[in-house]
Amino acid sequence: MTDIARLVRDIADAMAVAPERGEVATYIPPLAKVDPGRFGICVVLADGTAHAAGDADEPFSIQSVSKVFALTQALGKIGDTLWRRVGREPSGTAFNSIVQLEREQGIPRNPFINAGALVVADVNLAGHEPRVAIGELLRFVRYLADDDAITIDEHVARAEQQTGFRNVALANYMKAFGNIHHAPELTLGVYFHQCAIAMSCRQLAMAGRYLMHGGLLEPGGPRVVSGQRARRINALMLTCGHYDASGDFAFRVGLPGKSGVGGGILAIAPGKASIAVWSPGLNANGNSMLGTQALERLAEATGWSVFSA
Amino acid sequence: MTDIARLVRDIADAMAVAPERGEVATYIPPLAKVDPGRFGICVVLADGTAHAAGDADEPFSIQSVSKVFALTQALGKIGDTLWRRVGREPSGTAFNSIVQLEREQGIPRNPFINAGALVVADVNLAGHEPRVAIGELLRFVRYLADDDAITIDEHVARAEQQTGFRNVALANYMKAFGNIHHAPELTLGVYFHQCAIAMSCRQLAMAGRYLMHGGLLEPGGPRVVSGQRARRINALMLTCGHYDASGDFAFRVGLPGKSGVGGGILAIAPGKASIAVWSPGLNANGNSMLGTQALERLAEATGWSVFSA
Amino acid sequence: MTDIARLVRDIADAMAVAPERGEVATYIPPLAKVDPGRFGICVVLADGTAHAAGDADEPFSIQSVSKVFALTQALGKIGDTLWRRVGREPSGTAFNSIVQLEREQGIPRNPFINAGALVVADVNLAGHEPRVAIGELLRFVRYLADDDAITIDEHVARAEQQTGFRNVALANYMKAFGNIHHAPELTLGVYFHQCAIAMSCRQLAMAGRYLMHGGLLEPGGPRVVSGQRARRINALMLTCGHYDASGDFAFRVGLPGKSGVGGGILAIAPGKASIAVWSPGLNANGNSMLGTQALERLAEATGWSVFSA
Amino acid sequence: MTDIARLVRDIADAMAVAPERGEVATYIPPLAKVDPGRFGICVVLADGTAHAAGDADEPFSIQSVSKVFALTQALGKIGDTLWRRVGREPSGTAFNSIVQLEREQGIPRNPFINAGALVVADVNLAGHEPRVAIGELLRFVRYLADDDAITIDEHVARAEQQTGFRNVALANYMKAFGNIHHAPELTLGVYFHQCAIAMSCRQLAMAGRYLMHGGLLEPGGPRVVSGQRARRINALMLTCGHYDASGDFAFRVGLPGKSGVGGGILAIAPGKASIAVWSPGLNANGNSMLGTQALERLAEATGWSVFSA
Repeated sequence: MTDIARLVRDIADAMAVAPERGEVATYIPPLAKVDPGRFGICVVLADGTAHAAGDADEPFSIQSVSKVFALTQALGKIGDTLWRRVGREPSGTAFNSIVQLEREQGIPRNPFINAGALVVADVNLAGHEPRVAIGELLRFVRYLADDDAITIDEHVARAEQQTGFRNVALANYMKAFGNIHHAPELTLGVYFHQCAIAMSCRQLAMAGRYLMHGGLLEPGGPRVVSGQRARRINALMLTCGHYDASGDFAFRVGLPGKSGVGGGILAIAPGKASIAVWSPGLNANGNSMLGTQALERLAEATGWSVFSA
Repeated sequence: MTDIARLVRDIADAMAVAPERGEVATYIPPLAKVDPGRFGICVVLADGTAHAAGDADEPFSIQSVSKVFALTQALGKIGDTLWRRVGREPSGTAFNSIVQLEREQGIPRNPFINAGALVVADVNLAGHEPRVAIGELLRFVRYLADDDAITIDEHVARAEQQTGFRNVALANYMKAFGNIHHAPELTLGVYFHQCAIAMSCRQLAMAGRYLMHGGLLEPGGPRVVSGQRARRINALMLTCGHYDASGDFAFRVGLPGKSGVGGGILAIAPGKASIAVWSPGLNANGNSMLGTQALERLAEATGWSVFSA
Repeated sequence: MTDIARLVRDIADAMAVAPERGEVATYIPPLAKVDPGRFGICVVLADGTAHAAGDADEPFSIQSVSKVFALTQALGKIGDTLWRRVGREPSGTAFNSIVQLEREQGIPRNPFINAGALVVADVNLAGHEPRVAIGELLRFVRYLADDDAITIDEHVARAEQQTGFRNVALANYMKAFGNIHHAPELTLGVYFHQCAIAMSCRQLAMAGRYLMHGGLLEPGGPRVVSGQRARRINALMLTCGHYDASGDFAFRVGLPGKSGVGGGILAIAPGKASIAVWSPGLNANGNSMLGTQALERLAEATGWSVFSA
Repeated sequence: MTDIARLVRDIADAMAVAPERGEVATYIPPLAKVDPGRFGICVVLADGTAHAAGDADEPFSIQSVSKVFALTQALGKIGDTLWRRVGREPSGTAFNSIVQLEREQGIPRNPFINAGALVVADVNLAGHEPRVAIGELLRFVRYLADDDAITIDEHVARAEQQTGFRNVALANYMKAFGNIHHAPELTLGVYFHQCAIAMSCRQLAMAGRYLMHGGLLEPGGPRVVSGQRARRINALMLTCGHYDASGDFAFRVGLPGKSGVGGGILAIAPGKASIAVWSPGLNANGNSMLGTQALERLAEATGWSVFSA
């Protein structure tokens, strides 16, 4: 057993018995009934080997982690003109805050808060039917993960749609400023479905490889995005990937990462690894409690911080 | 001439003739009368060689760049208990905003906005006379830069003291919440003097070496801070070092950096380089316009982004 | 000709030729095409006599003035329990601000900002079809004005519905906090229709009589609301009736008043008069420019301020 | 015994035994040690008769009630040009909020929040020594109350000065925007002393007579301010006199009033009465709990609301 395999297993073992596991999100029934005892981890190294432990093959709702793939898709469609409609700064507020939009005239601070992700979904919609746009994103994620088994959990999508009043508010609010171009309910349809993509840690770590490899799907493989774009998506993940706890994640873990309310986190060690962790219990900031701890351990043991040589 | 020496010279040549140079800070006379035509750059590599060009040996007022050294000093005094009094999150607001303090009960968001730096100054004061605390910081910076010629510009310090009403407001406001422990005017005295430290690009790049070397003064040299602390200070610089343009700096340059209103920026490429640039004209966010452009060029040419392999 | 008749005519004459008339609201076409040259005024005295001048018999869109009648209706339905869902404080922000709702957990500051009026509409909906609730409000206003010719302008209602994204945002935002009980689109349907009630100055001044007569429809007539409730509605109009210019209106005019973006204002001199003015041009705060000036003149000439003996 | 005398006595009797009395302000020792059992009331009628009960002759710290007299003094000095430096709108925030100042560039929302009162104090300072300005205000209050025994409690003034960091912050913050013209410590000196004026209910009700009499000291007496100015000060008291509970006070009591953290309230029934109540226990909004209740009873029993005929 290699060192990394042992480390991944040790972390999973420790997390399996951790007494404090945070609180599972309860705003929709399908999330509320996930077992807080689950923990999974998968590390895909630069050499392509995958090292998994715990519930690494169980699909979960990736929720906001999908914002990374949707952003990549939108940049592919319209390039840097996206930044006329979305900022690139940490928000200093909660993931679903509407205050900032009033102050800044309907321009969300970054593509990883809900408002920003709605603008990204609006770009990806691009005049199509919502299900066309969703189908396109799903195919993109399957391609990145090299796994056609990835699907959308329709129960989750429907539940989001029934209870997502704050997101409806955000979309309509930005529409009032002209920063949503389609009918808000269509854009919201895309957004709710992308949040409902279900993936396992293994699939997620695979899907993140292009951010480890400077934009290539794998070493010597096809180019997904330019090297500059890969670096910039990593930069956005580092500064904005954990809502109003992004600074703390950079401080503790030191890697670009994007968390979701389903308990998943995708983290990238450029040139070294693409990592996915999952544990459904959340800390006070809405990020996976054990997932964050696992990444902190992993980063410490491997020295993978972007802030060291 | 080495590649890096040529690159540094080319950048300095380009910046010397840049037509748009931003606006020099005017809030105190000593800053207002600095020539906007100046530009300096110095890159100290991991091997200890220094590569300078332009006005790299002319001292300027380092202003908020001093917050990096003062933070390092305060962490040395009281360690991680500092974080009970200061946060680690990007602010989402201007460098001298007082709004956030009201919402968050007198706890500044991070040590690099003015309010946070005032708490740091209050820690460094530690019951001494202000000039003792300032003397200690000055000795620390001289040690880091290996240059005893570094001084405090008393004209600048006095001018800050005469016009710094917003900082007086911030200090008294936090005092009302119990988060300034000394008489506000004493803490302010330390703060105004640390902002008035004058350094050249060469001195500044030298002083930043410990953040390139994982906490060592130089390879094989004495330890200034632990490796973890060096990484964490770098993380704070990346997420919070450019006020409300920190996300943009991470996006464009991809290196931890700290800017000052005097036009200086210290940037760190971990394991590779400690970089100082200076040009007094500021962009709309209050960061050196040409300094930022020079770092963007340098990072692109060298591939030194922390977000690539 | 009585003094008041002459005064009313003089004011109308002066307003007819006023060079600066403000800007007509343009957010929906039916309002945008109203002639800014119009001005109407009607004063109904305590003795029941009506004194009108200018375009006093031309119907206009009463918009937010309807909030007074809708509030009266809601208080009739659920009494003071309404105040668990809406505050009674001036907002300190614009009429359609969403910031306050985030800070105060979905409880609008008062029933005269849009968010508060949406809660009031939600109360009035009371489980019925929207058109039932709207029919009830329309009958109530006709009763108050003693005029069955009052109608709803369906063009305006439809235009509001097509463009009212901010109101959709507000309703959904409060729904997320549980402070809208029906499906947001139903509550919004009621709200958009109540804003589209069309009335002339004469009809509006007649409809406001109960607030002049301590809750009686007319002296010796049937009771609409208790004396205490009439006083309290007047108090709310004074402190909150002109959005973020309520203080200024109290300062200049000194009477309870409620303005609408259609250019109408209803003002009450308790025991003395119910007054309606209309001029479609708005000042920077979104209140009728000439309407405010006319009321200032009227109050000064008659001494009707609530702040004098 | 007249009706009003009996009413005043009944109210005092009821308040003497009220079980819930609120919390005495504790931010300075001289206020913290006031007996929460105290209650006083004095009503001066239009005919000049004074009706007092309870602790109506015991001096207390009038604190923010002084803002009414200081405003009157400042308007006397510079007239309506004052409104270039202070707004006339309710704040929608706490009495000592600094947030609004950042948003509105150092212009306080109204003269009755602390920031506004500091601008008023700065106007009254007018280039003199602080004690000259304070002496002038004290003489003005003695004149209004017809009582030379009124003094400043130096213990209170000193305690304010030692602990008033938030006010120091506000003054310096506005100084940074150029809206404080003197050295902040001088303006603060005036402010802290005016807050420390000690008056009894009887003295305070006497001092408020000019606001009942349309600007005259007493019927047929000398003019203190114009009728318009008296009305306007009343309007400001109604919309802004109880900080962020001004709307509620207007709703419940229906009279212009100004409260202070010492537990005093001055209320005006134009043409009818000048009323002072005092009880040191405060409600959650920082206004006298029993004082507010007493005024609510008095207004209900007498029908003195400005919102009824």
